[in-house]
Amino acid sequence: MQVFKAAEVPIEWEEHYVGKEIDPRTQSFLTWESLESVRRNKVGLKGPMATPIGKGHRSLNLTLRKELNLYANVRPCYSLPGYKTRYDDVNLITIRENTEGEYSGLEHQVVRGVVESLKIITRQASLRVAEYAFHYAKSHGRERVSAIHKANIMQKTDGLFLKCCREVAENYPEIKYEEVVIDNCCMMLVKNPALFDVLVMPNLYGDIISDLCAGLIGGLGLTPSCNIGEGGIALAEAVHGSAPDIAGKNLANPTALMLSAVTMLRHLELYDKAEKIQNAILNTIAEGKYRTADLGGTSSTSDFTKAIIDHL
Amino acid sequence: MQVFKAAEVPIEWEEHYVGKEIDPRTQSFLTWESLESVRRNKVGLKGPMATPIGKGHRSLNLTLRKELNLYANVRPCYSLPGYKTRYDDVNLITIRENTEGEYSGLEHQVVRGVVESLKIITRQASLRVAEYAFHYAKSHGRERVSAIHKANIMQKTDGLFLKCCREVAENYPEIKYEEVVIDNCCMMLVKNPALFDVLVMPNLYGDIISDLCAGLIGGLGLTPSCNIGEGGIALAEAVHGSAPDIAGKNLANPTALMLSAVTMLRHLELYDKAEKIQNAILNTIAEGKYRTADLGGTSSTSDFTKAIIDHL
Ligand SMILES: CC(C)[C@H](C(=O)O)[C@@H](O)C(=O)O
Ligand SMILES: CC(C)[C@H](C(=O)O)[C@@H](O)C(=O)O
Repeated sequence: MQVFKAAEVPIEWEEHYVGKEIDPRTQSFLTWESLESVRRNKVGLKGPMATPIGKGHRSLNLTLRKELNLYANVRPCYSLPGYKTRYDDVNLITIRENTEGEYSGLEHQVVRGVVESLKIITRQASLRVAEYAFHYAKSHGRERVSAIHKANIMQKTDGLFLKCCREVAENYPEIKYEEVVIDNCCMMLVKNPALFDVLVMPNLYGDIISDLCAGLIGGLGLTPSCNIGEGGIALAEAVHGSAPDIAGKNLANPTALMLSAVTMLRHLELYDKAEKIQNAILNTIAEGKYRTADLGGTSSTSDFTKAIIDHL
Repeated sequence: MQVFKAAEVPIEWEEHYVGKEIDPRTQSFLTWESLESVRRNKVGLKGPMATPIGKGHRSLNLTLRKELNLYANVRPCYSLPGYKTRYDDVNLITIRENTEGEYSGLEHQVVRGVVESLKIITRQASLRVAEYAFHYAKSHGRERVSAIHKANIMQKTDGLFLKCCREVAENYPEIKYEEVVIDNCCMMLVKNPALFDVLVMPNLYGDIISDLCAGLIGGLGLTPSCNIGEGGIALAEAVHGSAPDIAGKNLANPTALMLSAVTMLRHLELYDKAEKIQNAILNTIAEGKYRTADLGGTSSTSDFTKAIIDHL
């Protein structure tokens, strides 16, 4: 909020605290009001939320995806100048189907000692996320979309996903299209991430590959994420954990959350503000004077934030 | 065969050519005689086999796993001195459940545009591969086994897998045991592979993570693989493709196949021979004088092999 204020971003905040008690209307720690707020405003920025373990409550993140029909999860991942990792040439966008696949929640015991879970792939959700990926590639000046799959084994489910991608690809002749098997994709990513551009894939593969990509540039503390829902909804979020061990200690790295807020501004077509804030964040990191503990520095969250505001 | 001869390995070869025509008894290009040979001899070394695409035949590799009940796929992956990648501290063993999970082959269309595939996890197969992993760790002087999973989403299937790993872990108090979510595991592997030791996991995760690990040290041309079956069967194999573009040109890198042959010798408890051949291979690569094209060199397969024999 301080950074947005300093950059004079023309928005009003509506705050919703979640996680206090279970809201019977959502069956989770997520309140109905918070959902209504996102539905009404069409955009939201969400901090990391931990679901209390083993209490049989629905995961907060999964509830959000389901209730708001957040069908595409977009994670840009690029090397940060000044923050050195083994890779300096990463510039990837992973676009993950976010509503079905291995996350169906359909599981049961067949007989004692034999359990099965269902992976569901639908034409509707596959076309929707493929369309989003190609549209994203086109509108962001990207050259290529790679569909990641394991259709050599899951011929029907991943096969349907690929079929949908191919159909959509035909409407975007200016975007190159390729299909890459997930195991091979992971090997290529760690050998040479510059081989890829935009990647689109079913739910679990997206979960795996987006974390792998984040690892290439330093981890989830640095990568933004935005969820796209039906009706133009965009919910930006940091995907790292809630780090209860440092809660309230002014130690957390706010980079992932701030860069996520930037993706929200782009969704609102506030491109100038987005650019300005992103540059201030990246320049602060590149300068290297203020860094939080997770990046090997000693700055507090507020010092780092102040440095960003100074850059603005 | 030349290397084994030079090292005076006391075995006789029995050769089986597969892939010519479909054997009605296996419904695949794999001959019944080749299966019988492995069953009789208990060990085998298999070159890469490509399954002709789109002809409705069963994959050669999957047929082998099924027919011989090859329940554990073991892939050691270590940095090769002299062959530089972004990582120089890799020393991992991935142990993959090889018979069920996402590879069940059970898939169907529910209604038009909706398909599902079944992931099957059984107590029997999970205990078996977990037992193999802990036994491997103990007998190879390894410290830790990490079970890789997504039980936060697939609570029943991956949950059962973890439960079995925990049960087995109790019988190996000297081996440390931990559980790591697959997305997080991939992120940690690319950030710092030295965090891991032996990894055990369901089929698809093993497929993905073993390729990721291979990527860290240079690719599938360098990593050995061995399949363990019921009744003490071991089938070693190079897991890279059959590279039809360079077939017969004396250009292929035989490292993965030779290192796989070394795992076979260890299985036969021919430890001295295994050590001797492995050192000759690693020293040849470390020396850097003879390298095949995939490693940036200009040596032919036979020059590289001759160099190894000279080292012996
Ligand atoms: C926390 C977990 C349920 C979640 C997921 O698997 O989707 C997380 O890993 C993510 O990527 O947002
Ligand atoms: C070729 C393919 C069926 C196979 C698999 O997915 O298991 C391969 O990737 C492997 O790892 O051996």
